[in-house]
This record gives sequence, structure tokens and C-alpha cells, in this order.
Amino acid sequence: MKLKIINPNTTQSMTDKIGQCAAAVAAPGTRIAAVSPRMGPASIESHYDEALSVPGILDEILAGEQDGTDGYVIACFGDPGLYAAREVARGPVIGVAEAAMHMASMVGTSFSVVTTLARTCNIAWHLAERYGMKRFCRDVHACDLPVLDLERPGSDARRIVAEACRRALARDGSDCIVLGCAGMADLCEEIAEAIGAPVIDGVSAAVKMAEGLVSIGLGTSKRGDWARPLPKAYAGMLAPFALN
Amino acid sequence: MKLKIINPNTTQSMTDKIGQCAAAVAAPGTRIAAVSPRMGPASIESHYDEALSVPGILDEILAGEQDGTDGYVIACFGDPGLYAAREVARGPVIGVAEAAMHMASMVGTSFSVVTTLARTCNIAWHLAERYGMKRFCRDVHACDLPVLDLERPGSDARRIVAEACRRALARDGSDCIVLGCAGMADLCEEIAEAIGAPVIDGVSAAVKMAEGLVSIGLGTSKRGDWARPLPKAYAGMLAPFALN
Amino acid sequence: MKLKIINPNTTQSMTDKIGQCAAAVAAPGTRIAAVSPRMGPASIESHYDEALSVPGILDEILAGEQDGTDGYVIACFGDPGLYAAREVARGPVIGVAEAAMHMASMVGTSFSVVTTLARTCNIAWHLAERYGMKRFCRDVHACDLPVLDLERPGSDARRIVAEACRRALARDGSDCIVLGCAGMADLCEEIAEAIGAPVIDGVSAAVKMAEGLVSIGLGTSKRGDWARPLPKAYAGMLAPFALN
Amino acid sequence: MKLKIINPNTTQSMTDKIGQCAAAVAAPGTRIAAVSPRMGPASIESHYDEALSVPGILDEILAGEQDGTDGYVIACFGDPGLYAAREVARGPVIGVAEAAMHMASMVGTSFSVVTTLARTCNIAWHLAERYGMKRFCRDVHACDLPVLDLERPGSDARRIVAEACRRALARDGSDCIVLGCAGMADLCEEIAEAIGAPVIDGVSAAVKMAEGLVSIGLGTSKRGDWARPLPKAYAGMLAPFALN
Amino acid sequence: MKLKIINPNTTQSMTDKIGQCAAAVAAPGTRIAAVSPRMGPASIESHYDEALSVPGILDEILAGEQDGTDGYVIACFGDPGLYAAREVARGPVIGVAEAAMHMASMVGTSFSVVTTLARTCNIAWHLAERYGMKRFCRDVHACDLPVLDLERPGSDARRIVAEACRRALARDGSDCIVLGCAGMADLCEEIAEAIGAPVIDGVSAAVKMAEGLVSIGLGTSKRGDWARPLPKAYAGMLAPFALN
Amino acid sequence: MKLKIINPNTTQSMTDKIGQCAAAVAAPGTRIAAVSPRMGPASIESHYDEALSVPGILDEILAGEQDGTDGYVIACFGDPGLYAAREVARGPVIGVAEAAMHMASMVGTSFSVVTTLARTCNIAWHLAERYGMKRFCRDVHACDLPVLDLERPGSDARRIVAEACRRALARDGSDCIVLGCAGMADLCEEIAEAIGAPVIDGVSAAVKMAEGLVSIGLGTSKRGDWARPLPKAYAGMLAPFALN
Repeated sequence: MKLKIINPNTTQSMTDKIGQCAAAVAAPGTRIAAVSPRMGPASIESHYDEALSVPGILDEILAGEQDGTDGYVIACFGDPGLYAAREVARGPVIGVAEAAMHMASMVGTSFSVVTTLARTCNIAWHLAERYGMKRFCRDVHACDLPVLDLERPGSDARRIVAEACRRALARDGSDCIVLGCAGMADLCEEIAEAIGAPVIDGVSAAVKMAEGLVSIGLGTSKRGDWARPLPKAYAGMLAPFALN
Repeated sequence: MKLKIINPNTTQSMTDKIGQCAAAVAAPGTRIAAVSPRMGPASIESHYDEALSVPGILDEILAGEQDGTDGYVIACFGDPGLYAAREVARGPVIGVAEAAMHMASMVGTSFSVVTTLARTCNIAWHLAERYGMKRFCRDVHACDLPVLDLERPGSDARRIVAEACRRALARDGSDCIVLGCAGMADLCEEIAEAIGAPVIDGVSAAVKMAEGLVSIGLGTSKRGDWARPLPKAYAGMLAPFALN
Repeated sequence: MKLKIINPNTTQSMTDKIGQCAAAVAAPGTRIAAVSPRMGPASIESHYDEALSVPGILDEILAGEQDGTDGYVIACFGDPGLYAAREVARGPVIGVAEAAMHMASMVGTSFSVVTTLARTCNIAWHLAERYGMKRFCRDVHACDLPVLDLERPGSDARRIVAEACRRALARDGSDCIVLGCAGMADLCEEIAEAIGAPVIDGVSAAVKMAEGLVSIGLGTSKRGDWARPLPKAYAGMLAPFALN
Repeated sequence: MKLKIINPNTTQSMTDKIGQCAAAVAAPGTRIAAVSPRMGPASIESHYDEALSVPGILDEILAGEQDGTDGYVIACFGDPGLYAAREVARGPVIGVAEAAMHMASMVGTSFSVVTTLARTCNIAWHLAERYGMKRFCRDVHACDLPVLDLERPGSDARRIVAEACRRALARDGSDCIVLGCAGMADLCEEIAEAIGAPVIDGVSAAVKMAEGLVSIGLGTSKRGDWARPLPKAYAGMLAPFALN
Repeated sequence: MKLKIINPNTTQSMTDKIGQCAAAVAAPGTRIAAVSPRMGPASIESHYDEALSVPGILDEILAGEQDGTDGYVIACFGDPGLYAAREVARGPVIGVAEAAMHMASMVGTSFSVVTTLARTCNIAWHLAERYGMKRFCRDVHACDLPVLDLERPGSDARRIVAEACRRALARDGSDCIVLGCAGMADLCEEIAEAIGAPVIDGVSAAVKMAEGLVSIGLGTSKRGDWARPLPKAYAGMLAPFALN
Repeated sequence: MKLKIINPNTTQSMTDKIGQCAAAVAAPGTRIAAVSPRMGPASIESHYDEALSVPGILDEILAGEQDGTDGYVIACFGDPGLYAAREVARGPVIGVAEAAMHMASMVGTSFSVVTTLARTCNIAWHLAERYGMKRFCRDVHACDLPVLDLERPGSDARRIVAEACRRALARDGSDCIVLGCAGMADLCEEIAEAIGAPVIDGVSAAVKMAEGLVSIGLGTSKRGDWARPLPKAYAGMLAPFALN
């Protein structure tokens, strides 16, 4: 089985880290390809960044459909372009926020999300609602940490995130933690040990979810909402996105 | 006051029609500019089209911020890119689905949406939820009509839409109709008369909503969620979208 | 266009203030008439006051239907008698809480309401639910200020309200403020400047909403729920309210 | 224990019927007084009628507080004035829709409401939401029967209501029926037998609920929302309603 | 009328106390039988305890159906086995949490629950949702008190519970208190007096609710969801539970 | 990894079938043990059956904790005893309805459930709500098929279920089907092919979900709600369930 992990931002060090975390949990027989798109923002910290990461993601999905990819993971906690991606993929496409929240709801009766900047909290809440996970989400906590600080060697990011997780758990009285940024994938185990509660990283969760779906023969339904888009003209620099 | 009406698809005849409908309801003193983006799909009939209409919309908003535009209308019933657009605009940005649904909730206790293709119904439901309007929306009905048929002279579109409105009203027992495509803006009055109930066109509704907000001094809040995005690098063909 | 602004309490100084705020934002061509009813409470601070303000409001609507009024605003944050008023009006009837909350949802992702007495908070929450605006309303804050203190020259009310707005914004992490009393209409601009965030006054908002609806030809749907009431006998001192 | 059953309309034959149904289920030791107010509509079939029934209801509650009434039932399925009434009562005030819906939720997993005119269905839905009973309410069905037809000897009302109950049960797949008009109180037993499912009449339900609350020492909480209204002036013909 | 009050745990002192509280509020003519099951946990403080209390409860219901019991109360705040019990009972079966929450919603606009151990709070929330009472429940507060401490003479339990009620009322700004354990039934009056707000004990509330239903002829609907279970074989030590 | 699949009814042929389906999708390295409990009902078709299946399930979980089981699947679509089981398990415990609904929400925007008897539909709805999946569940359809007919060689069950799936998809306009009984596990592939849409069997889904959780190190959180129950005495035939 071939899974493509798309880090929707163009920061290669984060893509590498995500790829390693994905590979570490993949079943024997699953090949992981982690990529960054050819276009788009260096990090995703607003609706604007998120919207502009989507063309790059779709470009990668279209390529994947040519090279026999069986399933996809969109590795940014805003799950950008998820529904559009599903329209052009035959196999499953899983968002890391989606997978993490769903799995969290099975290991505890409630979870807290710990994310980077305050302005992205609303995005997490919107996804929690869209996935039906709002009832399990006690609160979304920001670390006031720009995404790329997680990539900067020597930054204080690890300590800040761990501390925020501990506080979130205490304040919310929740049963487990969901890490709210794909760039935190490598902190998962260490924090779980430190705080004595399950910590869910969306990258690992999404890899297993995609693997699970593919292995029982489930792809994206092509009836209705996620059917292949109708062919039509595209203008300007987006002309290459026209399907036929 | 200067309002920019962005038709997110690149079909100029639809942009012209939308511009005329907007101008017809604008207050004296309001200047209407109706535009299509420089890039993107010829029509919007899927999540994929919608996602790829957003770069063009943002391009227009960025230009509007340079030329003294006071407010914006996004004239596609999926309200694509609304939140991203708000991050880069100082004045109000209003979606046509948003304005139509809000106004509908004030003229009746329930409304029915009549839209084009069945696959877009889910998008309308998602917006109804996002805006808090789900409780007023009895149902979303598709006409099985491709968007561009509304532009084709001699097509049967007018009759089909009117008929669908009549059926929706009867079946849902609703109090009024929301037209689910900006391309139906010119059908509003005619259908209202035919069915004897209020029919709400999002283009007119959004123009008045934007005008109202601007005239009482309300723009997009720059505290919190819709604050201006952080400056950062953008790669590839999207490099021009980098803010500073 | 002729709009009637009904202050449902009988305190004339408040009616005058509301009338001035309404006139200040009205479009050229809109004539504003601000009135207090002939009967009812001097201020509205309970369900009891609210219920007993409704006959006076309906009396004014019935009169307005005789004299060619195009639209109505009910200028008390409890929006008393809104649905009953709509049954007897042909044009739109807009509540100030309704208009303020709807507009707030377009300038920010969340709002805080700042109102007078704690016992009215529940009324605001009920309206937020009824209008679908609960999801945007972070909290409702009371100033512990009797309504008529807003009318008392030399009272500390301005300072108290401004302070409560600042605290609400900080505590709720919300994007904007909704003023929870029509008697605060004149404080709007001053507080917005002081706190650096949009402040929405329902009187202005409702005037623009009513104007917008009238100018695109939308009145109250007479299908279904808000159809004209059936004629019937009324007994005792309410006999004059019998319709025919 | 002294219970006052207020039929909010002024049709004495309906008040008598309601009084008999109430008396039939009262416990030994409970004295039932059934009254119509001194003012208001002959029947309640709109928001307008409902709003104008409230002064008469409050008049009766104020009188009851003087003469040692222990609890009250508001015997109209719209539960008009319930919250205002609670503010001025020390003991419990129970609406017939409220009691019927709550009890229905304990005898089945879902109920159907059968009411008179279609235009009142929305009122029933609003109450179901307010009381938390929306999740149990499968649907609200109208008989297209004016309220006073239930009082007209020789009318076809009994048959029409019974038939509507049977159809509602079948179509909704619900477990029981809630009668949506206090004027149907005497039909309860007969219909239950005819359709082989529990039928809940709000008058009986509310009498038992009020009795139950009084007998375990529970009245209306005077903390917070339903505390006694503040004293203030009332103008015009409503001047007698001023509290002190 | 014969009511059976089932204390689902096997601690006889609690059963006796519950029986006395029930008898104290029963109407003349109501015979109360309070029992503990023949099998199951000494107290109920987890989902595990709750699940394993159900066979004993059902055993008592089956016996009650043989000896002419008219209605049942399940006297544990988790309302264990309520739906299963209803399937085998003809008369009403009422849970103490159910009755208390419903009645609380009629004496105030919001309530706070005060319960024993923190780990049971989630059970209370689940019931509040199931009964539609979530909108009235401000919060659920734990005393960190094992259930059986309420039975231990000389324990500090009374003081701890009263104190928790006072704090809950203040912190939640709620109108009344629901006691979250049947073992607190005897504390109700004393705490109500101490805190000056209604305090609802589920045992009393459920007795009156069951009495009310029986006296107006309402039992458990045998249409649909709570119809008698189909006959079938049961294996092992549960073989006696096979119905026929 | 060792997974225990508990068929909560005592019908061995169904247990065997479930075990085969589980084994067919298990990853290399996963050992599947499928068991029926030592006590309880032959099939589960009511709340009563469901409640009485729980002691047997808990008995199997307690045994599993002794013999090194890593994760559990409860293979009945009512997910009986799920929360109680989680309290006594260290690893994950997954219900088949839970897993199927979660996975369905990732392959389509909506699903229809096809189950056996009408009286169990309400159980499916309750689970959909509990898991946050109500928003994806268009409807729950019964086949009017007793559970054990699925085991009866030569029965018409396969055809009936397939037909119900086809009808559900058409009527609900949903994107995929969730099979509402663990006994339908072997029909999954065949029906998917017949109806041209994804069909999700809970047994396969739950096996992959449990595998996924175990392989990324996630078990049941032992903080809070699902902590190990407190030790205490158990009476009568349930005495062996006392923990220590």
C-alpha cells in the first residue's frame, strides 16, 4: 500500500519530520511518501495561508492519482482542502485533525487541543464541529508559538508545548490531549510520558486511519458530494487545474 | 461609498448580470464595481472549483485594499474564501449566501434554498450551519441545472428555477425562498410574483448588508480571528500572495 | 421610505435619544418617526415588563399600517412582541437585538453582549438562540445598571458601560461588542474608539436592516406563520385590539 | 392545596370543560379553581392573540397571590406568559404544553403533537425547544380546526382530532400523542383507547405536575431570572399593573 | 396505588432512608415499597457498578409485574437500566435524575447538580442530554465523597454537601440545586433552608412524577421502542432472565 | 498484538462468522480471538437483552486483562457495556457501531444505517448522538429481520439486507451504508458491489481501529471517567464481579 503524506506548507524540515513520524508507525507493507507542494505558504497560521495552501495540495493529489497512490494524509491541523481533495481522489484522504479527534474520542470521554497561535483556535473549533467532535473537545489552547519555531533547533518550543499540555489537562479536566499542529508529531511520546495521559498526534493517527480504510477496501464514495468534479475551463495561472 | 462585487468565476456575462442587479438596489452615493478574477474556474460546482476560486478572490480583495474600496461582496452561493478575504480587508466582506439567509430569517420563520446541482446542496447546508441559519433552513433543493445554463440565451433555466421554487415552498411548508446561485439574481422579482411569497436574492441582500455596515461604521474586526495574516514567504506561482 | 422606531417603554427622553441615533444613520430619503406607546412600563427589566409592553407596541404597529409606514424597528433589546408585530405588519419589523446580533456575526467570529441588569441576561440568551446567533455569542454581561440610569444626566452610566465592554472583550476573547440596551445607542462610537474593537448598537443596525429589506422589496411573508391573525372578539379593556 | 387553572381565552364553555378535566384528576385535598381572564381574545390562534392574552393571565396570577393560591396552570398550548407569570408567583406555574411534553418523554421515546391550526405549529416547536423536548418531538400536526370548533356542539371536531392522532402516530412512528390544545382535554381517554397508545392531555398533566411540586415544597425560585420584578410606573390603561 | 422504589445498590440503610423519604411525600392511598436487589454492588460509583446493578433492578421489576405494582422509581442518580426496565413494565418507570432534572427546569431557568465522586459527573451530563435537560444544567459539581459516607453516622457528609450546594449556586449563577445522589434525599429540606433556593431531591420528585402518571392513566407505551422484549434463550447464570 | 473480539450474544455460529471476518482484515502479526460470553441472551434485540449481555462482556474483558490481550472489539451494533468495559481495560475497547460510524464519516458526507428490527433503530440513533455522528447519519432503516435469521442457512436474509441497503441509499440520498448488525459482517463486500457505494461493516472497521490505536501506543485513558472502578462488595450471584 502506498500512502502519500502531504505537508501543505513548503518547509522541508517539517516535511521530513512528518515523514519520519509517519514511517515509524506504518505497518509492514505500507510505503510512505512525504511531500511538500510546489507552491504556497512557508507555514499555515491564518485562513489566508490555509486557503492558499490548497492549490498545492490538490496538485499533489492529482499527481498521486497518476502514480497509484492508495491513500492520502493532509498533514496540517486545519485539514486544508480536505473536501476538494476527496473529490479528485479515489482512495481515502484523511486530515490529521480529523484522525486525531476521532481517535481521541475513543480513548477518553473528552480531550483538550494544544495548538500554536491563538488565531488558529477558531479553525480547530470549526473542524471539531464539522467532524462531530465538538462534544468531546473541552477547549482549544494556544501556546503563542509560531509554527516554524517548532523547526528551529535550540528553540524553547518542546518545553512550551509540554507545559501547555499539562495545564490544559488540569484546567479542562479532560482525559487526553490532541496535539494541534503536525509539526508537533515528534513530541507526542515524550509529552504523554511527562503528563501521564494519552497524547494523540494527528500524523500517526491519520496514517493508521488511512491504512485501516485502504485495507478493508474503503475509498472515497463517488456517489454524491465527493463525486469527481465536472470538466470545465480554468483561467489564468490556474489553467493547469482544469480537469477533463 | 465604493463596493466591489466579486463574481468568483470567470464568466463575464454572469459578472455583468450580477453587476446590474447590484447597481439596481444600491443607494444613491454607492458606486458598484463588479469584477471577475484573473484566474480560476469558469463556474463553481464542486468543492474543487470553490477552493480554486479563492486565489482569484483574494487577488481582487488585495487590489481593492489599494484602491479605497469600502466593502466587498463575494457573489457565489458557496461564499468561497470568505474568512480569508476578511483577514485581508479592513471593511466588511459579505457572502451572498450569508446575506440571503440572514435576511430570509427576518421575513419568514423558515426558508427553502433552491440551487443548481445536487452536489452543491451540502455546501449550502454547511454554510447554513456556519451562519447559525440551519434552524431556519427547511431544505435545500437542486434544479439539476449546470450554473452556466443560467447564462445561455434561450435555455429553459428561468422556467425550471421558478418551478423548483414553487415546489420547494409547497413541499417544505416554508415561508420564503432563498435563491442558491448568484447567477439567478435577475430572476428574483419575477419568481416572487409568480409564487406569491418573498424570494431572496443574495446579491441584492449582500449589497444592502455591506452598505448598511459601512454606513454605520462597521468593518471587519481586526482583533483575533480575522486579524491581518502574519508576513511570510510564499513559494512557486503563489509567491505574489506573500504579504508583508 | 417611512420607518417607525418604537421604543417599547414610555420614557420619552429615551425615545428622543433613540430617534436621534436612528436619524443619524438613515439614508437620504428615509423618514424616521420615533415613538413611545400610549400604555405600558416606564422601563423594561423583566419578563413581566416585557410582556406588558407588547400591547402598546402592537397598538403602534396597527397605527403604522394605517399611515403608510414601510418598516418598523422595535427598540428594546428583548425584542418584545416581535412575532406578534410581524403578523399585523406588511413591511419588515426588526428587533434591535436581532439586527445587532446578525451584524455582529459578520464583523467578527464571536461577540459579547453588555447589558443592564443581570436578570435580563437570560432574555438575551433566549434571543441569541431564537435567531441562530448562540454560536457567535461568547457571553452576556450585566452592568448592574437600571435602564433609566442611562437617562439620568450626571449618572456614572457611560463610564460603567464602557468599562464593562472592555472587560467583556478581554474575558471572552471575543472580536466585538453588542450593546444590550437600546438606551445605550449614543455610547456606541465612543466605546468603539476606547476599546479598539467594533461595537454594535442595535438601533443603528436595525434601521439599516429595515431600510435594506424595504429597498429590495422584502416585507414580512404572509404565507404561514406570520399571516394576518384571524378576526375574533376581544373582551374587556383589550376589546379595541380585535381585528377584522 | 389550592390550584388555579387559567384558561387564557375568554370562552367560558372551554373554561368549564378544562375545570372539569382538572378536577377529575386532582388528588383528594386539592381544590381546583378554573377561570377565564377579564380581558383578552376569545381564542388563541396566533402570536398576536397569544401576546394579548398575557395581561389577563397576569391579572389572574396577581389576584391568586392575594387569595392564597398554591400553584397555577396556564391552560393554553402556547403556554402564554409563562415566564412573566412565574416572576409574580411564589408557587409553581405550569404550562400545559410544558407538562404534557415532559410527561410524554417518560412514557415513550418520542411523541407527536396534534394541534388545531397549521399556523400554531411553529409555536409548539418553539416550546419544545425551550423545554428541551425537541429531541422527543417527532412532528407537530395540524387538524385545520379552529379552536372554537372544539366547543361547538355537533361539530365534527372529535372525529377529526382522533383521525389526526392515528395518522400522526403512523406517519411519525412515534410512541405516544400529545394533544396540542387545552380544549381537547376531554378527548384524551377516548382517543387513547381508539389508537392503542398513550395520549397525553396537558391539563391533566399540568395539574399533577403542579400538585407534585407543591406537595414536595417546590415553588418558583426567587433567585435570579424569576425574581419579583422591580417596582416602576406603568402608563395608560396598563397603569394598574404597576407593582410596588 | 402501589409504587416500588428500587435502590439499585445493596446497602440496606440507604434503602431504608430512601423508603422513608418516599413515604413522606406520597399521597394518601399510595403504598410505597422500598427494596434493594438480591444481587449487585454495595454502591454505584462507576459505569461498571452501574452496568452490574441492572440485572438486580430488572429482577425487581419482573417481580413487581407479578405482584400488581403500578409504578416504579429507580433510586440511583445514574438511572441505571431505565430503558430496559421500561420494556418489561406496564406502568411508568421513573429515574430519580430524570424526575429531579425535569422538575428543576420548572422552578428555575437553570440548575446545578451536586453529586458525590468526580468520576460520576459525566454520567449526570449524559443523562441531562438524554432527557433534553442539558440546556438547563449549568454544571455538575462533585463533593469528592464516596456514596457510602452518606450512610456513615458521624461522617462530615451533611456539611460537605451543603457547602458544595452553596458554592455551586454562587459559581454557576443558577436558580436551584439538584441533589445528585439518592442517598442525599434526607438532606433536601435542610439545605434548601440554608441556601435560600429550591433544592430538588430526585426520590421525592420521582415519587410524585410516578404518582402523577399513574393517576392520569399513563403507563409505558408498548408501541415501538419499549415494547415487551421478544422471547429467547438466556445462557449461564442469567438463564432465569429469559422471558416468554 | 492480541485482539479479543467479543460477540455479546451466545450464538456460536455468529461468533465464528465474526471471527472469520475479523481475521480476514487483521494485519500480519495481529492474533484474533473471537468469543461468546458464558452467560446472557442468544441474540440482542432490545434494551433488556442489551443490558443483560453486559455481565458476560465484562467477564470476558476481565479475563482478557489476565491473559495479555492488547485491545478489544465489542461486536454487537448496540455497543453494549462499552464504557463499563473501558473502565476495566488498559488497552482500547472499540464498539462496532462506533468504528463503523466514524469510518463512514470519512468516506462520505452522510451515511444510512441498515439494521435488523425496527425497535433497535432508536439504539442506533442514541449511539450516533453519543459518538457525535448524528450529523452524518441520514436515517436508520430496519429490515424487520430477527438477528438469528442471519444465521439460518437458506434464509432470505442476504437478499433482504441488500435490498434494504439499495433503498436506503436512494431514499436518503446518502453517500454510503453502515451495516447495523455484527451478524451482517460477511455481506459487506457483496452488497458494496451490488449497490455501487461503500458499505461499512463494523467488525472490520473496529478491528482496524483497535489495531491502529494499539500500534501507536494509545490505550484507554486512566485519568477521569474511565479510571479503574473502586473496589467494593458485590452481592448475590454477581459477587464474583467484585474488583479489588
